[in-house]
Amino acid sequence: MPALHTLLDFQFEPGGTKNPLIDQQLYRDLCDLVSQLVQNSSAAPLSSVSLGDAGSLDVFTAENGSHATLRVYPQGLLTVDAEMWVAEGEQPAITAEHVASTQKKISELLGCNKSKRFPFIKRGARVDPYVPTADNKLIEYDFDECVYEADSPYQNIKIMHSPQFGNMLLLDNDPNLAESDLAYTRAILGNGREDFSGKSVLILGGGDGGILHELRQGSPKSVIMLEIDQLVINAAVKYLRGICHDSMDQLKGHNYEVLVEDCIPVLEKYVREGTMFDYVINDLTAIPISTQPVGDSWDFLRKILDFSMQVLKPTGRYYTQGNGANMVDALRMYEGQLEKLSCKVDFSKETVCVPSYHELWVFYCIWKVDAANGCEGKDAQATNGST
Amino acid sequence: MPALHTLLDFQFEPGGTKNPLIDQQLYRDLCDLVSQLVQNSSAAPLSSVSLGDAGSLDVFTAENGSHATLRVYPQGLLTVDAEMWVAEGEQPAITAEHVASTQKKISELLGCNKSKRFPFIKRGARVDPYVPTADNKLIEYDFDECVYEADSPYQNIKIMHSPQFGNMLLLDNDPNLAESDLAYTRAILGNGREDFSGKSVLILGGGDGGILHELRQGSPKSVIMLEIDQLVINAAVKYLRGICHDSMDQLKGHNYEVLVEDCIPVLEKYVREGTMFDYVINDLTAIPISTQPVGDSWDFLRKILDFSMQVLKPTGRYYTQGNGANMVDALRMYEGQLEKLSCKVDFSKETVCVPSYHELWVFYCIWKVDAANGCEGKDAQATNGST
Repeated sequence: MPALHTLLDFQFEPGGTKNPLIDQQLYRDLCDLVSQLVQNSSAAPLSSVSLGDAGSLDVFTAENGSHATLRVYPQGLLTVDAEMWVAEGEQPAITAEHVASTQKKISELLGCNKSKRFPFIKRGARVDPYVPTADNKLIEYDFDECVYEADSPYQNIKIMHSPQFGNMLLLDNDPNLAESDLAYTRAILGNGREDFSGKSVLILGGGDGGILHELRQGSPKSVIMLEIDQLVINAAVKYLRGICHDSMDQLKGHNYEVLVEDCIPVLEKYVREGTMFDYVINDLTAIPISTQPVGDSWDFLRKILDFSMQVLKPTGRYYTQGNGANMVDALRMYEGQLEKLSCKVDFSKETVCVPSYHELWVFYCIWKVDAANGCEGKDAQATNGST
Repeated sequence: MPALHTLLDFQFEPGGTKNPLIDQQLYRDLCDLVSQLVQNSSAAPLSSVSLGDAGSLDVFTAENGSHATLRVYPQGLLTVDAEMWVAEGEQPAITAEHVASTQKKISELLGCNKSKRFPFIKRGARVDPYVPTADNKLIEYDFDECVYEADSPYQNIKIMHSPQFGNMLLLDNDPNLAESDLAYTRAILGNGREDFSGKSVLILGGGDGGILHELRQGSPKSVIMLEIDQLVINAAVKYLRGICHDSMDQLKGHNYEVLVEDCIPVLEKYVREGTMFDYVINDLTAIPISTQPVGDSWDFLRKILDFSMQVLKPTGRYYTQGNGANMVDALRMYEGQLEKLSCKVDFSKETVCVPSYHELWVFYCIWKVDAANGCEGKDAQATNGST
């Protein structure tokens, strides 16, 4: 059930001769054009309001139920909005060409040098294409189908199809990974800097199966993956085979095992038993973006970090995603947390382009440096916070 | 001079008990909430219209000049819009938190399971953040400054600053290249599959200097670059040093030369003189997206292709960008043109993620196959249209 919304913006010189708040004929001509956006014959506006010092607002309606507004700001901005219902599969009553032609005519009337036409905004569409980035920028995806949606006990799970990115997993409407996004998996595995052959690896989360599959291409001694949500695994096996391939068709192989469990009690058990790993790959949710490092999310993050360091061999490495590159404060807060761990650590970070994310993403590699805590130092890349 | 525009969408069961077109008290409560979006005290709407079978429209204005609309579609969609003026550097009267709280209250009133809040749309902002993709998707960039703008005899040139992508060149508002986009330059140079050492290379366009700089890192025998627009070069040298580095500080070096010229007459001269190259890299505009391969753009494209094939050695390779991966029809039309060249050619293509583009991009490698036309066949990658 979609409504198409057209937005047009025009900037004019408020002190110039072509100010619609002063030139009444100009204003009438503009009203005609906006009216014609939503109906074939021009008509008087439904209502016209002077907003005093704040300019004016006119509202137009058409017999088919479309409506439009014309807003003039005395500072030199004129906005036009039109909204119309378009039934699924039908052509809109207002075409993009008609909107472009109206834009041109209004620009000429106003003699304005800056105008703007937005792509139609789709409202209430069967397939919602808008997913903001971590830094709250508006992004329209090319989704043409929601191929799977379910609410598990833990989260809302959606898999959208994108012609360019393939199927894409969203958890609670947050982009997780698309079939185009091998760059993510490679980054969280060190982008070729690590040799996993003969090593033991613990994956926290990773339900899409990308990390497990990539690791299986090498010859790790053992991989254990702790994913809490069976529904995510089921959906990935069916709809994200470009990510997990056949790696979760069986949850246990000769050198790997997927445990469908909450990672916290398992980590506690490993700590108790003294089980340790060469690598811990944290593919849980992104670091929180709250303004202070307090609250449930940060408590969870610190708990995971502390447990992870305890099950990480002294020579081991911990990899994790961070957040969007523009989330500077959140990233800085995360790095602040690293200084407060019980075991002294150092880290490097890397900024990577993950195709379906529409924003650059930061990944961390963390290792222990304090021999006094039973940790060995590492010399490679050991400059604090080097990129 | 920005106006902030809020969009909220709600989907309800038209046949359910909570249909605002039937329940008058519900409708009044909704009006109160929308009114409160733009002013502190609730107020009667400026005007309320029944649109008959098409639902209803209410318009609200506040003393500060903000306005809002509440639109109900009988198919089960309710849209709320609010627009307010925010002077540069000031805080908006309506905060994102207030909008989120209104969204929650309306959702509860309607008992609706699907609602949507868009990031604020910035209208008439000093720095316009919206640039659509080739497939006309709405993308909000993180631009914080326009660092350069000029109109040359050929085009509008803009360089925008993005915190994550660095400075970014737009020609006629079309994204060209950002300092983050080495992936583009590598792709149009064959992603490491070519060895340019000792070879002669002709670049068509390439005013940002990225291709020239990348080639200079190898040891080509000679590079000639034909860029028509001196202003683009000047702007790149000053503001896109992450792309061109020092490669255009001097327009001539021991093995390269930048000619500020229209490429067509120079190509004609090369054809006349029999000058030939090992590589031609076409970094001119993207292939056109018109629905038929006719018109000035396609004529230009065919002319460039024909001249390029004539100055390409029989063993040479021609690289070019194509268009967005979703522009399937345009890409297919381009490939159709390749079959009609005077010299028989084959091609391969590659889809690449260029960080600042927000869409995957297709690159072509083309080579001559018909020995009868003085061309030699090539066996590598010679399957027609292989990706």
